[in-house]
Amino acid sequence: MSISKKIKASLSGSSMIRKMFEEGIALKKKHGEDKVYDFSLGNPNVDHPEAFKRELIKVADQEIKLKHGYTPNAGYPETRLAVARKISRTTGLKMTADHIVMSCGAGGALNVILKALLDPGDEVIILTPFFVEYPFYIENYDGVVKYVSTRPDFSPDIAAIGRAITRKTKAVIINSPNNPTGKVYSQKSIKDLARLFRKKGRERKRPIYLIADEPYSEIVFDGVKVPSILKAYSNSIIAYSYSKTLSLPGERIGYIAVHPRIHEADDLMAALILCTRILGFVNAPALMQRIVTHLQNVSVDVKIYQKKRDLLCGGLAAAGYEFARPEGAFYLFVKSPIPDDAAFVHRLLQENILVVPGRGFGCPGYFRIAFCVEDSTIVNSLEGFARAIQDCRPKKVSRRARLGSSA
Amino acid sequence: MSISKKIKASLSGSSMIRKMFEEGIALKKKHGEDKVYDFSLGNPNVDHPEAFKRELIKVADQEIKLKHGYTPNAGYPETRLAVARKISRTTGLKMTADHIVMSCGAGGALNVILKALLDPGDEVIILTPFFVEYPFYIENYDGVVKYVSTRPDFSPDIAAIGRAITRKTKAVIINSPNNPTGKVYSQKSIKDLARLFRKKGRERKRPIYLIADEPYSEIVFDGVKVPSILKAYSNSIIAYSYSKTLSLPGERIGYIAVHPRIHEADDLMAALILCTRILGFVNAPALMQRIVTHLQNVSVDVKIYQKKRDLLCGGLAAAGYEFARPEGAFYLFVKSPIPDDAAFVHRLLQENILVVPGRGFGCPGYFRIAFCVEDSTIVNSLEGFARAIQDCRPKKVSRRARLGSSA
Repeated sequence: MSISKKIKASLSGSSMIRKMFEEGIALKKKHGEDKVYDFSLGNPNVDHPEAFKRELIKVADQEIKLKHGYTPNAGYPETRLAVARKISRTTGLKMTADHIVMSCGAGGALNVILKALLDPGDEVIILTPFFVEYPFYIENYDGVVKYVSTRPDFSPDIAAIGRAITRKTKAVIINSPNNPTGKVYSQKSIKDLARLFRKKGRERKRPIYLIADEPYSEIVFDGVKVPSILKAYSNSIIAYSYSKTLSLPGERIGYIAVHPRIHEADDLMAALILCTRILGFVNAPALMQRIVTHLQNVSVDVKIYQKKRDLLCGGLAAAGYEFARPEGAFYLFVKSPIPDDAAFVHRLLQENILVVPGRGFGCPGYFRIAFCVEDSTIVNSLEGFARAIQDCRPKKVSRRARLGSSA
Repeated sequence: MSISKKIKASLSGSSMIRKMFEEGIALKKKHGEDKVYDFSLGNPNVDHPEAFKRELIKVADQEIKLKHGYTPNAGYPETRLAVARKISRTTGLKMTADHIVMSCGAGGALNVILKALLDPGDEVIILTPFFVEYPFYIENYDGVVKYVSTRPDFSPDIAAIGRAITRKTKAVIINSPNNPTGKVYSQKSIKDLARLFRKKGRERKRPIYLIADEPYSEIVFDGVKVPSILKAYSNSIIAYSYSKTLSLPGERIGYIAVHPRIHEADDLMAALILCTRILGFVNAPALMQRIVTHLQNVSVDVKIYQKKRDLLCGGLAAAGYEFARPEGAFYLFVKSPIPDDAAFVHRLLQENILVVPGRGFGCPGYFRIAFCVEDSTIVNSLEGFARAIQDCRPKKVSRRARLGSSA
């Protein structure tokens, strides 16, 4: 054996999402693109806002000496300032450029944060169902993943989180709006979490960092508001990405925002900057930094996603599926009509429908539908969804058949 | 304490290059930009080629559905194919898209490669003087750094490398053209290395991976050719970056190229793709992938750097400095006129000259000049360089003074 043993082990249990993605490619080759209903990947299908394209063309054309040179490891000061101003406006906190580190998306941000924080054996709590990459990110830095189930409505179970906190707990990751459930944590949930962490922090004389993974904070429906964790709790860190807000997940641009009064703020900021450098990110892509500087208040049209949610929820409810209606993001987490979610996902495959089994998110008995797809994909898939659930219902067996079987 | 202990320790011994960079900013504020001669950072000052700008504007303007969406973790197939074709042409090897993973520059590439390969305690050999980030990259994955000195002309010391190889040696990193010395390893050096690794690989029944960090492979002078390690040795992996070839280090675009007959090729490729994902890179920036697809044979005008080298080498030789003339990259590694390189670097600071002490590269007694600066910076700094070396020469003491001192 030559490659890393840990990576070799990870390979064999590799991401179910990607596996579905590959099965999807094979199915599409066989049946044609429009005959396959691919809900497996969170790759936004709403195009970037026109303002993004205008800004890109403007910057592409500008004559700036060494426009594509290294930026400071933390990012351009003007970009960080624009981000700080935006957060200051929405939270009332006094954020400055010194509280912001530009990152390669939220995935890059989370890796940098965890590397900066974790010593081997430190525990990080994540809430089930969870985004599939969290365990990898935590184990990258020899952290220990502690799984805590959410309540039946996918809101955080404060008492259970409290029981999971030990002397070794370094951080808790939350993700609201949530992937895979679409849940937006309420103001009360956030306040209760903050109260719990303050209490536990005092007891242990060691802070608990609240890491909020917020790539979907702008993708919310029906006027729902995402409560600010920065306002609620001072030992909090935001991992943000423009991937979903501006529909550019391939460009890898996001940021880390640190509460101005976080524990040992200077050390933490220096650590985040160092880790950006030594993990090989070096700096967030320069061109994208320039562009997002001027797009702080721009977003894709969220109504487009809301319509998709409504189409999907309407169709699935009519077919008899059970789920909690998403308040944000573009995922629906559906109860599998049979306990074995993998088996049901295979049943859906026969309908050329690609979804991801809940066990991939630590939550068997469910499956995830990523509805960032064409409306027609949703509409045309509904018959297949209906057939699949009907198949799982106890068959009405005729009197004759019953008599026959008892014979 | 709350942040990672390892990171805290790294912070206190943080990069000398960045420290010089910051001292530079302070000096520039005090004396004015044009009065400070900043040779501390390898941030290319030659602008990107016109072809890059044309391609950027073209791609920015194109109407492509979801142009900025996620790419496959390994990168766009067409980009990988373009890279594979280029390498096939120059090496005669049959490279395909399946041997290429697009990366966030060479820094991202090296992190992905080392994570894919290393188990805790695996040893990685690097050659002194070394690029300052290598020890960080290796220790990120709990690897053990083994330092082997180069020969006085900075070429690899094959015998010394042979002695440093143990049962735990997983890989050797080389960097030619070299940062900080400008050395280009000869065809003979590469062949000797390959022979050594094959022999040791057979003896240990376990391959030694040769990782070639090649961001400067296009930046060579006087018609020097960089020998291909892929042609010489099958267990070799290239970490490449377009940062220097196209002058866009801030955009974070490069690739990993794996020898088609490398040991357990399929596992290694899968591992590289997985590590790209789970380290949070996810994919190399999409827009830059599209652009470099069409710029495989484009490079900055290397003559511009060659002229800078000649200006600098001429001036420093006249002043009495000792160094090996760089054959590539844009660094000059100069013998300090006094044994204490840090002290001499401080003497140069008094002349408003910023360079980096050799100890930062594991090689005390030298200092590094990054000559990717304006010609005028080089020319105007030469007086200061001359004064500094004169100061270090043994003073001619007059007869009278000698008599006086003996009195």
